[in-house]
Amino acid sequence: MPDRALLEVFPTPADSPFVIEHVAEEFTSLCPKTGQPDFGVITLRYAPAARGVCVELKSLKLYYQSFRNEGIFYEAVTNRIRDDLVALMHPAWLQVVTDWKGRGGIRSRIRAEYGDVPVDWRTR
Amino acid sequence: MPDRALLEVFPTPADSPFVIEHVAEEFTSLCPKTGQPDFGVITLRYAPAARGVCVELKSLKLYYQSFRNEGIFYEAVTNRIRDDLVALMHPAWLQVVTDWKGRGGIRSRIRAEYGDVPVDWRTR
Amino acid sequence: MPDRALLEVFPTPADSPFVIEHVAEEFTSLCPKTGQPDFGVITLRYAPAARGVCVELKSLKLYYQSFRNEGIFYEAVTNRIRDDLVALMHPAWLQVVTDWKGRGGIRSRIRAEYGDVPVDWRTR
Amino acid sequence: MPDRALLEVFPTPADSPFVIEHVAEEFTSLCPKTGQPDFGVITLRYAPAARGVCVELKSLKLYYQSFRNEGIFYEAVTNRIRDDLVALMHPAWLQVVTDWKGRGGIRSRIRAEYGDVPVDWRTR
Amino acid sequence: MPDRALLEVFPTPADSPFVIEHVAEEFTSLCPKTGQPDFGVITLRYAPAARGVCVELKSLKLYYQSFRNEGIFYEAVTNRIRDDLVALMHPAWLQVVTDWKGRGGIRSRIRAEYGDVPVDWRTR
Amino acid sequence: MPDRALLEVFPTPADSPFVIEHVAEEFTSLCPKTGQPDFGVITLRYAPAARGVCVELKSLKLYYQSFRNEGIFYEAVTNRIRDDLVALMHPAWLQVVTDWKGRGGIRSRIRAEYGDVPVDWRTR
Amino acid sequence: MPDRALLEVFPTPADSPFVIEHVAEEFTSLCPKTGQPDFGVITLRYAPAARGVCVELKSLKLYYQSFRNEGIFYEAVTNRIRDDLVALMHPAWLQVVTDWKGRGGIRSRIRAEYGDVPVDWRTR
Amino acid sequence: MPDRALLEVFPTPADSPFVIEHVAEEFTSLCPKTGQPDFGVITLRYAPAARGVCVELKSLKLYYQSFRNEGIFYEAVTNRIRDDLVALMHPAWLQVVTDWKGRGGIRSRIRAEYGDVPVDWRTR
Amino acid sequence: MPDRALLEVFPTPADSPFVIEHVAEEFTSLCPKTGQPDFGVITLRYAPAARGVCVELKSLKLYYQSFRNEGIFYEAVTNRIRDDLVALMHPAWLQVVTDWKGRGGIRSRIRAEYGDVPVDWRTR
Amino acid sequence: MPDRALLEVFPTPADSPFVIEHVAEEFTSLCPKTGQPDFGVITLRYAPAARGVCVELKSLKLYYQSFRNEGIFYEAVTNRIRDDLVALMHPAWLQVVTDWKGRGGIRSRIRAEYGDVPVDWRTR
Repeated sequence: MPDRALLEVFPTPADSPFVIEHVAEEFTSLCPKTGQPDFGVITLRYAPAARGVCVELKSLKLYYQSFRNEGIFYEAVTNRIRDDLVALMHPAWLQVVTDWKGRGGIRSRIRAEYGDVPVDWRTR
Repeated sequence: MPDRALLEVFPTPADSPFVIEHVAEEFTSLCPKTGQPDFGVITLRYAPAARGVCVELKSLKLYYQSFRNEGIFYEAVTNRIRDDLVALMHPAWLQVVTDWKGRGGIRSRIRAEYGDVPVDWRTR
Repeated sequence: MPDRALLEVFPTPADSPFVIEHVAEEFTSLCPKTGQPDFGVITLRYAPAARGVCVELKSLKLYYQSFRNEGIFYEAVTNRIRDDLVALMHPAWLQVVTDWKGRGGIRSRIRAEYGDVPVDWRTR
Repeated sequence: MPDRALLEVFPTPADSPFVIEHVAEEFTSLCPKTGQPDFGVITLRYAPAARGVCVELKSLKLYYQSFRNEGIFYEAVTNRIRDDLVALMHPAWLQVVTDWKGRGGIRSRIRAEYGDVPVDWRTR
Repeated sequence: MPDRALLEVFPTPADSPFVIEHVAEEFTSLCPKTGQPDFGVITLRYAPAARGVCVELKSLKLYYQSFRNEGIFYEAVTNRIRDDLVALMHPAWLQVVTDWKGRGGIRSRIRAEYGDVPVDWRTR
Repeated sequence: MPDRALLEVFPTPADSPFVIEHVAEEFTSLCPKTGQPDFGVITLRYAPAARGVCVELKSLKLYYQSFRNEGIFYEAVTNRIRDDLVALMHPAWLQVVTDWKGRGGIRSRIRAEYGDVPVDWRTR
Repeated sequence: MPDRALLEVFPTPADSPFVIEHVAEEFTSLCPKTGQPDFGVITLRYAPAARGVCVELKSLKLYYQSFRNEGIFYEAVTNRIRDDLVALMHPAWLQVVTDWKGRGGIRSRIRAEYGDVPVDWRTR
Repeated sequence: MPDRALLEVFPTPADSPFVIEHVAEEFTSLCPKTGQPDFGVITLRYAPAARGVCVELKSLKLYYQSFRNEGIFYEAVTNRIRDDLVALMHPAWLQVVTDWKGRGGIRSRIRAEYGDVPVDWRTR
Repeated sequence: MPDRALLEVFPTPADSPFVIEHVAEEFTSLCPKTGQPDFGVITLRYAPAARGVCVELKSLKLYYQSFRNEGIFYEAVTNRIRDDLVALMHPAWLQVVTDWKGRGGIRSRIRAEYGDVPVDWRTR
Repeated sequence: MPDRALLEVFPTPADSPFVIEHVAEEFTSLCPKTGQPDFGVITLRYAPAARGVCVELKSLKLYYQSFRNEGIFYEAVTNRIRDDLVALMHPAWLQVVTDWKGRGGIRSRIRAEYGDVPVDWRTR
């Protein structure tokens, strides 16, 4: 069962704003309708708040693994991760993009966002 | 015959705005002039309205399959899908891009749009 | 000899603005200096005017083929196609990009434009 | 031990502003927790100040090599390099992007910035 | 020895503004410190001035070849080419990007610019 | 319904043995169990018999199109095409390879053969 | 728990020998030491025996899914699948190749085989 | 009109056997049925005879260009080039492979050969 | 210092012969002449002896890491790994391929082998 | 001027046979007819003789650089390098492959060989 208690943080190591991206290529959960496994790639991007915190990488891996036997839709996975990580870190900006392998010849991408995109990320 | 009655919806699972992309790589219809098959990739991107609805994925697949033996031009396919899905979901934003394999050495892409591009999609 | 009389149109099939892209990968003309063949890819992008017209695809192919034995520079090909298609369709926006295989270790791209880039194209 | 004293500069060779990018594909340091080696790619982009200085390429290589046996986190590497190079060059703009090979199925990218992105870089 | 006298021009063939890109993949010069050969790719992009001139392609090739046995730094090559071509053409906009193969595991890109980026180039 | 009567031949244009390969990237049939469309790529390779015949390209395209609304398994498509073309041409060697897009996360390739592989094809 | 009883067969649809390849890109099991998930791609290639049987595709998918929560090493997965499918089909030839995503910077491939490689497969 | 008189030779510059490959990516001829242009890539590989001759590269280019406005089938082009070059050089081994862009969704490759493949080419 | 005592084995889990490949993409050692770091990819392929042993994956990683601060030439690394692993496992066949990033514009690959290549590996 | 005296050797570091490959991507010489620069990639593969010698890498680089301002044909470069290196090392096997960037739309590859291909190289 997805478990946000698995997530841990550490203080941001810099005074200046910066951006962090973690790409997890080995995510799997179950389709709540059919019980069939879904496979996806989870991209997390965020800018820690000033004097804020960052999510610890190994705890993030364990949190993602807690979805392994959960029946949950693409859209719900994406918004759930967004909400859990925003509640954890209160970042300046956060974006979750999930890319799902095809089902019935259709592949899908879902994107949820929190806060304003940093100016320099906008410009590439 | 393309049949919008095949399409089904479900309520958007999030309070915050987000973006959904479905890429159907196995679309086929017929050229209305020659009867020859056309093959394309249909990319649908949209942001559900607040408290709005999302198109159900399996019903979208069946809707696309209903074009299989229809004689219809590239431009008409693209605008028809845009119109059917806007009528179905009344989304905040919606974009349909169709990519067609080459005919006579020329390959084509058509793009139709509804509503304003979400700010964060603009910035990448 | 390039012949704009080959080009045909049909009425735009939609009330809403949309964008069309045709990529012709098999273009050839001659270098006016040396008589050697040039090979290029011609990308045409345009937004039809409201209640305007679209260029018919097969007539576009024949128009491109009419350059086959014409001696003409890269820059002139690009501007000629832009001018002929603008005169034909009076579109809201039109862009011609030509990509030429290398000569003497240098490959070239020329881009000519007419009208304002549609807002949604700008944002990606 | 990372050693900023290894870095050398030379005067900017132009009156007009310009942008320099150095991509170091062979960076390695150690994980401070486990002692395991980390491997990454360091991308440095900057615009020298008017009448300012540029970092000398060979000295940059030696500076990067001085992290080889240092236990240091991804985020700290990135901010440390940003701070050292800003202190060295006082550039108009500087950006450090680090790309790290996957650990536990998650690969990471960190980006730290100083100053305003040059206008022409924004427009790409 | 780099020789700008090799460069020739011809009048711009269009009344409307347009953009030209020439990519020379076979550039070589010498490192002024070590005498070792450097290999790079030179990308030139420019918009001719209204009623202005374009650089002739074969003369550009010969001009580039005149750097073959010259000892000159990356940054100086880039700015020298920018300056020579601006002096030659007085274009509306000009950009020179040089990409250099790796030395000591670091590959480099230098970009020098003149004038304002054309609006349509900005938008893609 | 697949119809071998659509196939036409012409006499081999050479005295020496040679090999012909036709790759049809736009093949579609139906799953006989579910009625869902299947999409595949059909690769045909053959060496005409001495003083034998070759299959005419346009007739081959029409023959492939005759499977469009036929319910038939992957393995049966492959062997059916092999049998029909062998009966048509009596070639020295013939190979049919079909590549099918994924169903349920599994993509498939089937290969059927007739006669001995030509010596020079074996060696690459 | 891996369960060979899930596997079903159907009679080979051809008199002539042929080769079948199924690539399952979404395989996951658990490391028996650490309990961490492993992700791999399973490639199955085989030639049915004369008048023999083929494995049914959907049953193969369910059989692969039965490894999802099993702790089992790479080498054991590979040999187990080979043994189960040989026992099921008694094919003329069978090959199982498993490709595993990296652990600790090392990615692995295991290959197990049964029977003699068909002559035409050898030659490409 | 294809003209073998355009071809020139020079003596092989080595006592030991060796292999030469020329890939011409810009070949065009006409379809004899429809008059439509065909575009292909011509790969020539050969081993000169002991004390034999090689085809001169520029003359080969001009010979290929002589097909530009000739109506001729794929198979005939391939065998014609093989025959002309064998008659010209009497090589130890010669292979012509032609790759043709798709027509009606089918792309083709034709291969004609003369003599025995050199042993070392066989082994890669 | 490279230390073969780090290597551990486990009994081969199958009665039939099979092949194992481990690709380590993050290998680094030092140049014994200049002290500069070298970066390479180490590919190990082997067939365990009947009733023989396999190298344990984590111990292999630690063994590779023991070269991190060792000054040693490409050729010596390759032969040393071959010798250490042959002494450890007495396999039926073993191959070590090392791929080194470029130095002075030249990249290198070294391959050392032990025993006879398995028949099925030869055939692809 | 190409100068074989630049080449140096060191004793083979292994008792068992092995294979070495050096790929030099930055080779340039001049066309003896036109004086225009040629750019190529030189791949050298060899198996040292038992108790034989290997070519030292830096000396190989300098030897290749000695062709920089030499007018010499593709075929002559290839055979010259083969002859110089065979004379230097008396290897068990040696192969030189040169890949040349396109001239007039034709790119070329030349391959010269000495001795018998090692058995394991043949099998991949």
